[in-house]
Amino acid sequence: MSYDLWYWPNIQGRGEFVRLVLEGAGIPYRDRAREEGAEALMQDMAARRGFGPFAPPYLVDGDFASAQVAHILAWLTDRHGLGAGSLETDLQLIQLQLTVTDLVAEAHNVHHPVAADKYYHEQKAEALRAATSFRSARMPKYLDHFEAALKVHEGPFVLGAKWSPIDTSLFQLIEGLTYAFPRRMAALKPRYPLLHDVHDAVAQIDGIAVYLSSDRRIPFNEDGIFRHYPELDAE
Amino acid sequence: MSYDLWYWPNIQGRGEFVRLVLEGAGIPYRDRAREEGAEALMQDMAARRGFGPFAPPYLVDGDFASAQVAHILAWLTDRHGLGAGSLETDLQLIQLQLTVTDLVAEAHNVHHPVAADKYYHEQKAEALRAATSFRSARMPKYLDHFEAALKVHEGPFVLGAKWSPIDTSLFQLIEGLTYAFPRRMAALKPRYPLLHDVHDAVAQIDGIAVYLSSDRRIPFNEDGIFRHYPELDAE
Repeated sequence: MSYDLWYWPNIQGRGEFVRLVLEGAGIPYRDRAREEGAEALMQDMAARRGFGPFAPPYLVDGDFASAQVAHILAWLTDRHGLGAGSLETDLQLIQLQLTVTDLVAEAHNVHHPVAADKYYHEQKAEALRAATSFRSARMPKYLDHFEAALKVHEGPFVLGAKWSPIDTSLFQLIEGLTYAFPRRMAALKPRYPLLHDVHDAVAQIDGIAVYLSSDRRIPFNEDGIFRHYPELDAE
Repeated sequence: MSYDLWYWPNIQGRGEFVRLVLEGAGIPYRDRAREEGAEALMQDMAARRGFGPFAPPYLVDGDFASAQVAHILAWLTDRHGLGAGSLETDLQLIQLQLTVTDLVAEAHNVHHPVAADKYYHEQKAEALRAATSFRSARMPKYLDHFEAALKVHEGPFVLGAKWSPIDTSLFQLIEGLTYAFPRRMAALKPRYPLLHDVHDAVAQIDGIAVYLSSDRRIPFNEDGIFRHYPELDAE
């Protein structure tokens, strides 16, 4: 079995949360739009009407396509035994993943508070205000929540010794927030030792380590979710 | 079995998507914060550390709490046989529900583009710009997507003759968007006959009809997700 992943080919973006799980678990996949381009992605998505995806990323197995990051990861968890194997705990992991989704949306909203289809420079004044609130109120609120979840077991992962998709997602959050807000993340770092532990532990998972040093890992850039605009960062 | 629903007591908000399913399916529940107040909600949530909710609404059964609207509804669907009974279709319904979640977040962002913890009047200028883009680009994009999903079966519901939680959610979207943007929704109405059909069909489900005429249905107001600020509306 090999999956087709469809996502914008030039950014990590939301697709990266799916890529990390596939790479970490050694699940074969083709990153279709990186092979065939964004136009092929648009055409493929347009052909999937009805119950098809609203937006990339989506993951395809045969005739079935699954969209929405947390939903894709729950599907992979179920199919490939990546979770706790207990219904209640697996439901709680999905819930945590959906909270990652919310933080990702808010991180994007910081540089696009007015309209996703307008450029950053068209909404920079609004973004400056949004960033202040995001850094002071929202980042600690979310990071407190994830740090508390990491206290349930002994670590380094959310479930303890076994990694699951929420861990690769927390890794990516720390990576992305540190890229976008290096000064703020440096100031916050002492408050979140467990988040930094899980970040470091994920980076050492065999499949992840290989992936991160490959050219499949697209560098962060100012077209993705996590963008480094120095004027939006502060301690 | 009776569930405890915890949500802010003075708004429909995100909790309404859960209330509608419980009411429509005749599932017993207590709306705890409406009985005991917002302070009780804050205390209850603070006591649920670790894998607990990041934010209301959450639904409790015994020792287990589930948060995130789409996740709560998937859990209820599974436990109470509210879905299609086919894994692939039920996954597609969850995916649609997660897209409802995205639209709800964007609808809130229209009146709070800068910061959720600041008042509307502190970000009105930004909201005016955000509303223009939301009305012209985002509303039709989402409504097109849901209208297409309603074409998969014969209607009036997404699965055909049987309603499921995505239908009560589409009902609530139409209700909320019509409350918040009456001029825009009137202009768009001819493009979305199936969405208006499902709205009307949901309103006639026995449990929903009783609920809507009860005082359990909180009127829309300017503290919730869908707010009517006339300056943000236009054809």
